[in-house]
Amino acid sequence: MNLAAIYHEAKSKYAYAYDRETVHVRIRTGRGEVDDIKLIYGDPFHFAPKEEQESDYEWQAEEAQGISMIKEYATGIHDYWFCEIKPKWKRAKYAFLIKNQYTQVIFGSREIIDVDKDSDNTYELSNFFNFPYVNHEDIYEAPEWVADTIWYQIFPERFANGDRSLNHEHVLEWGSRDDVTNDMFFGGDLQGVINKLDYIKDLGFTGIYFTPIFQSPSSHKYDIEDYYAIDSHFGTNDMFKELVQEAHKRGIRIMLDAVFNHCGWQHPYWQDVIKHGRASKYYDCFFIEGDGVVNFPLNDNNAPDLTNMTYDDMINLKYATFAFTPLMPKWNTDNEQVKAYLIGAAKYWIEEYDIDGWRLDVSNEVSHEFWRAFRKEVKSVKKDIVIIGENWDEAFPWLHSGQFDSTMNYDLLMPIWSFFKENTSDDTHTTPSIFIEGVNRVLTTYPKNILRNMFNLVDCHDTKRIMTVCGGNEKRAMLAFLFQFTFPGTPSIYYGSEIGLDGENDPLNRKCMIWDKNQHNMRLSNHIKTLIKLRKTYEAFMSAELRWVDYNDEHEYLMYKKVTTGQDIYIIMNNSNTKQWVPLPKELINRNVRDIYHEREMNLSHDVLLEGNGFLILCAS
Amino acid sequence: MNLAAIYHEAKSKYAYAYDRETVHVRIRTGRGEVDDIKLIYGDPFHFAPKEEQESDYEWQAEEAQGISMIKEYATGIHDYWFCEIKPKWKRAKYAFLIKNQYTQVIFGSREIIDVDKDSDNTYELSNFFNFPYVNHEDIYEAPEWVADTIWYQIFPERFANGDRSLNHEHVLEWGSRDDVTNDMFFGGDLQGVINKLDYIKDLGFTGIYFTPIFQSPSSHKYDIEDYYAIDSHFGTNDMFKELVQEAHKRGIRIMLDAVFNHCGWQHPYWQDVIKHGRASKYYDCFFIEGDGVVNFPLNDNNAPDLTNMTYDDMINLKYATFAFTPLMPKWNTDNEQVKAYLIGAAKYWIEEYDIDGWRLDVSNEVSHEFWRAFRKEVKSVKKDIVIIGENWDEAFPWLHSGQFDSTMNYDLLMPIWSFFKENTSDDTHTTPSIFIEGVNRVLTTYPKNILRNMFNLVDCHDTKRIMTVCGGNEKRAMLAFLFQFTFPGTPSIYYGSEIGLDGENDPLNRKCMIWDKNQHNMRLSNHIKTLIKLRKTYEAFMSAELRWVDYNDEHEYLMYKKVTTGQDIYIIMNNSNTKQWVPLPKELINRNVRDIYHEREMNLSHDVLLEGNGFLILCAS
Repeated sequence: MNLAAIYHEAKSKYAYAYDRETVHVRIRTGRGEVDDIKLIYGDPFHFAPKEEQESDYEWQAEEAQGISMIKEYATGIHDYWFCEIKPKWKRAKYAFLIKNQYTQVIFGSREIIDVDKDSDNTYELSNFFNFPYVNHEDIYEAPEWVADTIWYQIFPERFANGDRSLNHEHVLEWGSRDDVTNDMFFGGDLQGVINKLDYIKDLGFTGIYFTPIFQSPSSHKYDIEDYYAIDSHFGTNDMFKELVQEAHKRGIRIMLDAVFNHCGWQHPYWQDVIKHGRASKYYDCFFIEGDGVVNFPLNDNNAPDLTNMTYDDMINLKYATFAFTPLMPKWNTDNEQVKAYLIGAAKYWIEEYDIDGWRLDVSNEVSHEFWRAFRKEVKSVKKDIVIIGENWDEAFPWLHSGQFDSTMNYDLLMPIWSFFKENTSDDTHTTPSIFIEGVNRVLTTYPKNILRNMFNLVDCHDTKRIMTVCGGNEKRAMLAFLFQFTFPGTPSIYYGSEIGLDGENDPLNRKCMIWDKNQHNMRLSNHIKTLIKLRKTYEAFMSAELRWVDYNDEHEYLMYKKVTTGQDIYIIMNNSNTKQWVPLPKELINRNVRDIYHEREMNLSHDVLLEGNGFLILCAS
Repeated sequence: MNLAAIYHEAKSKYAYAYDRETVHVRIRTGRGEVDDIKLIYGDPFHFAPKEEQESDYEWQAEEAQGISMIKEYATGIHDYWFCEIKPKWKRAKYAFLIKNQYTQVIFGSREIIDVDKDSDNTYELSNFFNFPYVNHEDIYEAPEWVADTIWYQIFPERFANGDRSLNHEHVLEWGSRDDVTNDMFFGGDLQGVINKLDYIKDLGFTGIYFTPIFQSPSSHKYDIEDYYAIDSHFGTNDMFKELVQEAHKRGIRIMLDAVFNHCGWQHPYWQDVIKHGRASKYYDCFFIEGDGVVNFPLNDNNAPDLTNMTYDDMINLKYATFAFTPLMPKWNTDNEQVKAYLIGAAKYWIEEYDIDGWRLDVSNEVSHEFWRAFRKEVKSVKKDIVIIGENWDEAFPWLHSGQFDSTMNYDLLMPIWSFFKENTSDDTHTTPSIFIEGVNRVLTTYPKNILRNMFNLVDCHDTKRIMTVCGGNEKRAMLAFLFQFTFPGTPSIYYGSEIGLDGENDPLNRKCMIWDKNQHNMRLSNHIKTLIKLRKTYEAFMSAELRWVDYNDEHEYLMYKKVTTGQDIYIIMNNSNTKQWVPLPKELINRNVRDIYHEREMNLSHDVLLEGNGFLILCAS
């Protein structure tokens, strides 16, 4: 047995409280190395008298034979095992009895004991892991509404132009350019969004995530001048209030983008620092090395002249910035003025405008300490506000100890892209087995209660669009959406991707929304609408219990099951572009099943014929 | 290469900020599996123009060949590698280039890449781990004085009786019993401690850790009635103020025991609950199942009649307790009244009496959320107060995100006991190699900045005494102390162990302190005194850099080096009871060295003769 491959850590993603009664336990082993694992557990203090002899006490395991763990998921070189326990007194000491055909060991917190050679020490409690107490206030808890929400992401400058009076002189005609840049303006605004709320509602969305809408010079508005004002080209604060009210009337929640890592060059605090240097009362609001902050060329607006700045200028900035962008000075979020200003803004938009969520820009570069304070403050004014971080890497360090409810799930986007993308001459999509391993990484990286709230995306304003990833093959994009919607977590559609808008990386992923229905890809749009409807109908779509049923690398088909206390669903997909027969899951053969997507009853004795990129969503009746 | 054995996690004990400039990186591999590891790292946003072609940018690793990691420590089946980096812009993306004679791979956050087969993807940044930003407010920071402190732990009822007028009628004659129980009282009090401060100072101690001293019926006082009052048999609040002042005059800091997991049966909040049930305004201060809290026999004092309670009574309590002790109802530390009361007490003893630290009883069963609030509050009234948890298991989950400065290091106590204990007919001490592996577990479990502040003990009021562990062999106890004092962290001596007091487990480890100097083991006492003096003189004692130099399992000798920017020291110990020749570390052969313990100069050409359990502490001059 590959003992060195085994990994478990108490009080981590490997052992966490799922709810007030339940502790989840996971353990990693070398793939295919282990046949059986039993979790031996009991209360650390539970000793009972040995039979008649009252004075001789013996530790009590909850089930003498241990709890069977299931081999839940496998990645390339590891298996991950899972079980749940409900410790009667909310405390648990535990160890793992791990077996294969050659050996059986106790894997404990301090040593690995060969049970056949050293059975005396099997129940040595000092070698047990400890989950000391299920304290309810430490349990992860997101607002209940989050897991049910389907987000629509809007990049407001490019979504809809509803009020032409707000257009400035440089605004171009809507949709007049496909080769958009971030320096172009098309006049998208809040009135445009209000006008389109029925469109959004009609598709079934229940939340809107806005990229930034506060006063900023750029089209993307990640360089904020005033965190308390709606950008004047987008509208007014009052118009935003109306937008929230109109959205709420339609059952749509509103999430804004909190750009708290950095501000924009024009922010008055930063301008004061440029003017007064160390004498500025905002000097400590930023991270500045000494004096002479501006050591690079400025343009006519007294802003960094990016076109004339050299690489050397960029890497020799005397102040901390986002990336190497002189336009975006990094906030010192340990400064009391900054904390009051930013958290004040976060509360202002909740208290005055009743927003429902904050998405946190570059959240991984802001301190944990700041986010803990942020959460306490914003939850104190609205308990069920959602907090979603932008974390491109494994985000568990931000998802415990009072920080976020969720993060943008880029770890999921990557295997989705690799699997569903269209083949090109020099790049082919991955096999089902590689896809499963990539997805399993996500499934084993996060606790199950967090998985249900992860923000799942297939594209956004920072990536290519899914239609471009899929090389324009709408049927592949449909499969990607199908997977997104049947995976645990809260799905997000980037404006326009529902009608087939394409686009390469930023800035080409920020084209104007197309409002001419004749140019909409209605198959895609209806697909999204149907998936949303099904997701609202079948609890299983949301379940964190995903079980792989079957796959075939050569024929590129894949089946999985979503398990719930109610009705399970089966998803069968043909990831090849070729029509082919695909075997039914054994348990569905010769049974009455319903394809809930295509709304038809079926009863099949063996295989089913699927179009290229065809799929079924089956429910056994 | 055993790829499945490799483990690394970003933002964890495997990758943490050491100080504002430095990030420490560790990785685990299968033991003996790997010959070389290079850390490839750079700023995530640092792309530079490729030579002449300004438009084509390329990611910049900080050192193209990578930073060499050192194979720092080995446990039974793993090697642990270490390096530090100083990311110029406080951000780091990194991956590991891992080699042995057969293969070389990039170990990244998402996949392992065989460099020889797939060199295109070597620098694929999306497969790099991320340390997004070194935010100063997230960096672990304990008060500076802690690492230098040598603690003396006092169990006040048994330390010294200084004021006979406080004795109640049941007080027994001091030291009249060796078979002490927790129901006996000997009249130890605060005046006794004040009287003995010079004794404590003379040995060199700079801190006192008191087990609880607040109003409680028991001898151990872990069943508190009033958190704001000194126990009336120990003295008065005023007397405690005098004690703190007198200690401070002598350069001795005072740490008290915060029993915040549970209170005592007689606590007025609990008494109110017993009386009024659900109608009590304190009902939610505890975890109670419904009504009829008292479902077991009471004695004449209306307290649980432990002698007549059955096992079934104990496991069917209707309220949460510490262990299964009906006398100790568990606090609901999520209740606002409880928080105000307990944190209020914590601040009261700081503000009014100027104490220097809180040791947190059963800290692992109290919520993380409570401890974060606790830390904020107590540090706000005295910035350099120390917070030390009682955690018997791996404590890292309590040592980040604004909780403790340190915990009691039971993970170190265990290998120390196993190695230094005296052999008996059925139990032999471990070999140096097993000892090294056990100690290495500790060295790799905690970040190095935390290691310097861990509370290191060889015994305490909850364990056997070290003299008993060593079967009365004072020379073995001396070796245990030698190791304790040369290990990174802050050492603690349990009252009396310095003069050879012995004792089995609780309650026998709580015998009266012996004040007749003729009964003191002066060799032991002088040993402690010398170790304290040396520790104060040689920075290397405190260093977190411990390097094993040599060992021999058959002959049971062991050598290690403590490395510092100043002068390194070498510790050579003979852990067998037999006099023997031990080889000198190569680098000390034919050099002038000073044995700083025995205060003699040496210059040896090969081996050195050590008594059974003899040792040297050498400094190269």
